[in-house]
Amino acid sequence: MRKSYLYNEIADNIADKIKSGVLKAGEKLPSVRNLSREHGISINTAKRIFLELEARSLIWSKPQSGYYINSVSYLKLPLAEASQPIPIANTREPDLLMNDIYSTMRRKDLTLFSIGVPSGTLLPSAKLKKEIQLATRNLQDGGTDYEPLQGNVKLRRMIAARSLAWEGNLKDDDIVTTNGCMNALSLCLMALTKPGDTIALESPCYSGILQLAVSLGLKVLEIDTHPITGIEIDALKKLLPEINVCLLVPSFNTPLGYCMPDNNKKEIVSLLSEHNIPLIEDDTYGDLHFDAKRPKCCKSFDKDGNVLWCGSVSKTLAPGFRVGWVAPGRYKEQILKLKLIHSISSNSLINEAIGNFLLTGKYENHLRNLRRTLQENYQKYASAIATYFPAGTKVSRPQGGLALWIEFPKHVDTEKLYNQALKHHISISPGKIFTLQEQFQNCMRLCIGLPWTDDLELKLKQLGHLAKLN
Amino acid sequence: MRKSYLYNEIADNIADKIKSGVLKAGEKLPSVRNLSREHGISINTAKRIFLELEARSLIWSKPQSGYYINSVSYLKLPLAEASQPIPIANTREPDLLMNDIYSTMRRKDLTLFSIGVPSGTLLPSAKLKKEIQLATRNLQDGGTDYEPLQGNVKLRRMIAARSLAWEGNLKDDDIVTTNGCMNALSLCLMALTKPGDTIALESPCYSGILQLAVSLGLKVLEIDTHPITGIEIDALKKLLPEINVCLLVPSFNTPLGYCMPDNNKKEIVSLLSEHNIPLIEDDTYGDLHFDAKRPKCCKSFDKDGNVLWCGSVSKTLAPGFRVGWVAPGRYKEQILKLKLIHSISSNSLINEAIGNFLLTGKYENHLRNLRRTLQENYQKYASAIATYFPAGTKVSRPQGGLALWIEFPKHVDTEKLYNQALKHHISISPGKIFTLQEQFQNCMRLCIGLPWTDDLELKLKQLGHLAKLN
Repeated sequence: MRKSYLYNEIADNIADKIKSGVLKAGEKLPSVRNLSREHGISINTAKRIFLELEARSLIWSKPQSGYYINSVSYLKLPLAEASQPIPIANTREPDLLMNDIYSTMRRKDLTLFSIGVPSGTLLPSAKLKKEIQLATRNLQDGGTDYEPLQGNVKLRRMIAARSLAWEGNLKDDDIVTTNGCMNALSLCLMALTKPGDTIALESPCYSGILQLAVSLGLKVLEIDTHPITGIEIDALKKLLPEINVCLLVPSFNTPLGYCMPDNNKKEIVSLLSEHNIPLIEDDTYGDLHFDAKRPKCCKSFDKDGNVLWCGSVSKTLAPGFRVGWVAPGRYKEQILKLKLIHSISSNSLINEAIGNFLLTGKYENHLRNLRRTLQENYQKYASAIATYFPAGTKVSRPQGGLALWIEFPKHVDTEKLYNQALKHHISISPGKIFTLQEQFQNCMRLCIGLPWTDDLELKLKQLGHLAKLN
Repeated sequence: MRKSYLYNEIADNIADKIKSGVLKAGEKLPSVRNLSREHGISINTAKRIFLELEARSLIWSKPQSGYYINSVSYLKLPLAEASQPIPIANTREPDLLMNDIYSTMRRKDLTLFSIGVPSGTLLPSAKLKKEIQLATRNLQDGGTDYEPLQGNVKLRRMIAARSLAWEGNLKDDDIVTTNGCMNALSLCLMALTKPGDTIALESPCYSGILQLAVSLGLKVLEIDTHPITGIEIDALKKLLPEINVCLLVPSFNTPLGYCMPDNNKKEIVSLLSEHNIPLIEDDTYGDLHFDAKRPKCCKSFDKDGNVLWCGSVSKTLAPGFRVGWVAPGRYKEQILKLKLIHSISSNSLINEAIGNFLLTGKYENHLRNLRRTLQENYQKYASAIATYFPAGTKVSRPQGGLALWIEFPKHVDTEKLYNQALKHHISISPGKIFTLQEQFQNCMRLCIGLPWTDDLELKLKQLGHLAKLN
């Protein structure tokens, strides 16, 4: 145990020096033998440290020579600004642009920076096919009968088991399965609100959540949000008397990618509980952490069942399968009732297959690869942005997840850029769809879940060029 | 073509004589040779007529002797009465008994007369398993990616093709897939109503629909309903000014099982269109006709897109798969928008598998067997009721579907009966859950989708006995 502590510590130490510029791009690192002598560790541990740094794209290996430090100039890109939305609840219709963008998402001729899920090539389709075939054989009725209202037991047990990693300590009885994460959020909002109620959201906020809230007749209060730490607690405190429900995406949020620090999560849970405001936590990106450790959730700090924790496999495994869940705390009965009324049950066969996939460890294997790919992608995208985009472009610093948030110089109109880019077979998500207010007209979200290729780099170069023409 | 017209005509003619008592129980029918001579038809056609009548359980074959007429004493059971609900919109919470009943539905120790779907043994699980395995191989991404918002093309094409049988003339673009039929109804109501609106429903009405309406904040207006012809048009006319939306289950309704005559369907469509009241048609039992012909739908008479026709495979194929659809007429955009917001898409893999099942004709084969079984069951259940239930018991006369509606003498309390029956491992659906008013306290629904066995007959005998003790 002590050895791995040392291994992480040393790797982090070197990583910090690289990021801060103490160790410069192009510099050669000590040999494996020297590193092992320097720190009094085994050759194997030294090798592991280098592999870890290589995995983080901080160093690269030149055959018969040694390890060299990567360029991390992108880390010098300025940080996107914290948002300052107007603290007045809004009932405006979400921008219709969202529908346009959604309609382009199946076009094979586009480079889809606008999607919100990993590219299919990064997902284990073959293994999932096998899992489904197994489930059809093993489920007694082939999955044709209704499953228990709370949902497939195996899947719930696995979600509960995985919650130990973030100190959730859930039991399978605490969980209700749903048809994907949006469906979980939808059930939560229908259970907890009535038309005219006010919902507090981060800003920028995933457009699907804005649409859901407005369609349920809710007034939307967008709260100041910092690109590294998330929603500003002081801003939230001032508006508490108006708020009926709060919905946050605190771990690797789209589009900002921050991971709200544990202390903030704890404070918000406590604050909302004190004021009897239910907290809906969308943790659908929680497994996509770039660091080794799975972050805690707000639910980890939930003492009185006031946090409804939602998740799914849509961002990590299979968007089309519609497999999600919620641990609704003290609101479980209301959630079950609505699930019964609106859709009776989830799909038993698919949920059983996903449950098995989680059980056999294939999910965790897949996640390790996916996380690594996403982190490498982030660094490559950011390097391309540093190289090709207009001077003064700011970015987010995602610590996980699928998104990169770009803030162009103020004169760049990203709705205009969206239309220009489409003519060049590139699709982006303009900032205005992530708010109901007049904000983010110079911002955009890019999906980092596309496999990195030379062509992708060319497309980013083209995007940068188009932005410069603005 | 003319021959089969003759064959049906002759079979129907004999059937009528049996039902009306002109041909008496126990009587011997003419031989095949005599029948062929009598009507100037071939021996084969004459044989077919006898097979058809045997399939309808009206005659039975005694080896080396000939065909004899079955007892159809159940046909002498008095008809259940037309309902006369109070014509005032109601916002009362549905009876909690519904939740109790739902919670018993997976118990293996109960004879579940309370379920609303065919028993698993009557469903083609093995064939469906194969179909899913095929779909996992053939779907390009194994079904992991989101499908088009409108839903799987193959499934929609097949639903459209099948609509020709009821003169629906739908195209695949007219259809949107959903997660089962309740989900289709839910989307329709969310698109067309707001809390405080009034919905007109048949009475008795499936409890799931009552719960859905109340949960959406709607006021429920229950309309007089006749057990053979369905909703009373005059009663509906009087209340039109108050009604915002109408939801009917006009073909093999649960729990009454009637098939609304075509003229009535046509008149209602016209009436509601004139008054700009959308009509949601739940056609989920439409394929379960006892007669040879698939009935027309209200949608068949829809001239201006005011009818939203909903269906699913939950009552005919696989309840657990959550495969449904709606042809929303002129309300398609609203439906699509809500589908996107609340659940993004349906499950591509499962929908593809069901689409294939329909394409290859396996569905129609299966339906033929299922219909035959349900019709035979109806006759057996009804005979048992005529034999074992209290004098004065009335029943519905289902022309299709899964339900039989029993009306006991007025002093019998079916909620009490429900509790007594549970102690004897029998589960029923008491009448009170099919209304929000004080009605049907002496009524109950039985599911005729359970395979007929001696034990089942014993259970019916027991039920009759318990009712007599009341």
